[in-house]
Amino acid sequence: MSNLKLNPLKKLEIIIEGQHQEFATDLLDRAEVKGYTIVGNLSGKGSQGFHEGHLMFNEDEVLNMIIAAVPEELVEPLLEGFAPFFDKHSGVVFVSDIQVSRLVKFKS
Amino acid sequence: MSNLKLNPLKKLEIIIEGQHQEFATDLLDRAEVKGYTIVGNLSGKGSQGFHEGHLMFNEDEVLNMIIAAVPEELVEPLLEGFAPFFDKHSGVVFVSDIQVSRLVKFKS
Amino acid sequence: MSNLKLNPLKKLEIIIEGQHQEFATDLLDRAEVKGYTIVGNLSGKGSQGFHEGHLMFNEDEVLNMIIAAVPEELVEPLLEGFAPFFDKHSGVVFVSDIQVSRLVKFKS
Repeated sequence: MSNLKLNPLKKLEIIIEGQHQEFATDLLDRAEVKGYTIVGNLSGKGSQGFHEGHLMFNEDEVLNMIIAAVPEELVEPLLEGFAPFFDKHSGVVFVSDIQVSRLVKFKS
Repeated sequence: MSNLKLNPLKKLEIIIEGQHQEFATDLLDRAEVKGYTIVGNLSGKGSQGFHEGHLMFNEDEVLNMIIAAVPEELVEPLLEGFAPFFDKHSGVVFVSDIQVSRLVKFKS
Repeated sequence: MSNLKLNPLKKLEIIIEGQHQEFATDLLDRAEVKGYTIVGNLSGKGSQGFHEGHLMFNEDEVLNMIIAAVPEELVEPLLEGFAPFFDKHSGVVFVSDIQVSRLVKFKS
């Protein structure tokens, strides 16, 4: 049963234009994030940004969502790494709490 | 660093038949939700509803998931807005806590 | 308004190779999970497992994410049920807190 212990992690959901996906995955790789999953071909709409009255997404823009589970201490450095990029490009990063069971094994 | 402050928001994940997507996005637009992302072509199965023993989704039904980040005070009005619709149609709305960094900028 | 009460549930996000999806949905069915939604055609990358330095996902592997909302008491039995499988196969299960409104109705 000890391997059923649930470990708290942070989930990042990075919604980014498909053409810029590699910027995000490179940043995750450099932060030594251990894995991520990509949901492709999203559509999005943002009539206004959350805080600033700017457009978030154009309609018909192709977006990807990159989902990564990271230790809490990586959240701030990653968000800082994304800051200059999202200064110039549309997108958003959602941060939330998840738990991942130790029993999850990884194929060697 | 001040722009790294994480802001608590609520994430809505609205799973709805593709043919009714516009009902949901219209409702979000009228509530002045600032943006959303749509994951298309989901499949679903619901042998029974969560609470009432009714079918939630037919197999092979085409579903979309609309993801929106909203301020907490919008959650109840939005759920009330969805109520009459989900009285008649299959689907579900998940509500969860997320944080969005202020550093996320939106293309103007 | 009484039907707007939000009910806490646990969300499972099961990321699994497409070829093994049925293992997961069978397990959910046997646990009498009332419904789930499947996001197909994900891509994933895992240079290393979260805990053990092993590969999580091969690049170009086709992955599905199965999303299910379950009562808290089902989480541990389900994770135990997945344990022997994830001993041998790549994949991961994320557990998080969600709320689902009673107002969500299900088509009969």
